[in-house]
Amino acid sequence: MSEKLRNQRLKDFPYRISIPTRWGDNDMLGHVNNVVYYRYFEAIVVRFMMEVAGVDWLNDPSNPQAVESLCRFHRSLSFPDTVEGALKVEKIGNSSVTFGVALFGSDDEKPAATGHIVEVFVDANESKSVPITDDHRAVFERYL
Amino acid sequence: MSEKLRNQRLKDFPYRISIPTRWGDNDMLGHVNNVVYYRYFEAIVVRFMMEVAGVDWLNDPSNPQAVESLCRFHRSLSFPDTVEGALKVEKIGNSSVTFGVALFGSDDEKPAATGHIVEVFVDANESKSVPITDDHRAVFERYL
Amino acid sequence: MSEKLRNQRLKDFPYRISIPTRWGDNDMLGHVNNVVYYRYFEAIVVRFMMEVAGVDWLNDPSNPQAVESLCRFHRSLSFPDTVEGALKVEKIGNSSVTFGVALFGSDDEKPAATGHIVEVFVDANESKSVPITDDHRAVFERYL
Amino acid sequence: MSEKLRNQRLKDFPYRISIPTRWGDNDMLGHVNNVVYYRYFEAIVVRFMMEVAGVDWLNDPSNPQAVESLCRFHRSLSFPDTVEGALKVEKIGNSSVTFGVALFGSDDEKPAATGHIVEVFVDANESKSVPITDDHRAVFERYL
Repeated sequence: MSEKLRNQRLKDFPYRISIPTRWGDNDMLGHVNNVVYYRYFEAIVVRFMMEVAGVDWLNDPSNPQAVESLCRFHRSLSFPDTVEGALKVEKIGNSSVTFGVALFGSDDEKPAATGHIVEVFVDANESKSVPITDDHRAVFERYL
Repeated sequence: MSEKLRNQRLKDFPYRISIPTRWGDNDMLGHVNNVVYYRYFEAIVVRFMMEVAGVDWLNDPSNPQAVESLCRFHRSLSFPDTVEGALKVEKIGNSSVTFGVALFGSDDEKPAATGHIVEVFVDANESKSVPITDDHRAVFERYL
Repeated sequence: MSEKLRNQRLKDFPYRISIPTRWGDNDMLGHVNNVVYYRYFEAIVVRFMMEVAGVDWLNDPSNPQAVESLCRFHRSLSFPDTVEGALKVEKIGNSSVTFGVALFGSDDEKPAATGHIVEVFVDANESKSVPITDDHRAVFERYL
Repeated sequence: MSEKLRNQRLKDFPYRISIPTRWGDNDMLGHVNNVVYYRYFEAIVVRFMMEVAGVDWLNDPSNPQAVESLCRFHRSLSFPDTVEGALKVEKIGNSSVTFGVALFGSDDEKPAATGHIVEVFVDANESKSVPITDDHRAVFERYL
């Protein structure tokens, strides 16, 4: 899935946020450390879940938990750039939703990195998956 | 690939290290944050590359760079556990090597998380890929 | 020094930046982890040094290095707030400069945390301290 | 206080732990990032509090919270070293305890960094400070 994202532009994504890089995001090779790309992915998904889908991890009866994530690194990002993070919904299952995500440096036409995150809704005890609520499903469909 | 790893045990992996978790690895849900799993994967691969394959990122004429990573989250890990990180070589290409990786909590028979990291050797300018040296290839083959 | 900062307001500081918190900044107690306050302090000082004082760590003949930092934690900060970071110059020595720093949550009149960072300019080999250049001194004096 | 620690050796500290550095601990200057020193301090204090003093942050009726920390940076630490972290109790108040802490690289006779952390015990609502229990006080006195 993230292969298709590679040729898309920022405006092709329905949800976008700006992520200021931090000094400590760079590692000793002078670029943003690979692990930190997932920190940026998390920033995109968490903010989408909170602000658009209205998820409250600490109080809702069910919550999304990541079961898989992937990142393809196409080009380096570096502090002190501000990165644009982009998201679209790729697939909606019974209990799960798959987000396609991409990161753009401030001069990038094509993504510096692309990937996906699969989230499954689980009950408050994290013991079993539960169906996506109608409200959440309606939100996710708007971002397909 | 990482699907097959899911049913393997720690002893099935030819390379293993212990990773003490840190307080800050847990997030507000009380488990190791998803992003930190990649920090652990990095610890395994970096140490393997340095200690077994003899890679020196700052001085070698060519260096491995991650081009893709993936993680499947099967169960939660939590501070203050010590995590066992495990690695095997899954595929050796002309310029690239794919590592299968797994994380085990101290009481886990099966992995809490599995995944892979694809590294490509690039020249010192990070401008183009270069063939894996015979020395590195010989090392990787021993861990297939 | 940071004791005096405790009763100051955001507008009392001549240099200010906004710092969006990240999900992973919170620890399992549900607040921004104490260590991350220093990440925010670093963001303020690094950005001031780069954008206002024109420091280039990788290419300048001399560079500022932290020799001491301190933080007093007055109130908790929490994701998903945007934190305001504030700085003033407290002391200029021959080779060193001391910054007073403060962090404000979006609803805070008084700082949630205050502290200081002492930076010493060292030569490129990090072997000995060097006098602050006239250009840097002139900048620091404007922020006293 | 931490000034006196500067000339002490590892064996002068009654509590000591080993801290393996991680690749991502280094920043783009090739040394452990200043902020990460506080991550190491936290590792020492948290482990001491849990394993020696028996503190359980999530379940105890009162808990230690940091109100101040300080670090003096004497020499650089670097991945892939294993750092020795050392602690002694410097002062016991009614509700607070001050720890002197130090970090040693594997070849260091004298500390690479020294500092202190002041913790105050607060009730479960984090609304007011409470006296240190007799059990905790007895533990802290053994590490003076």
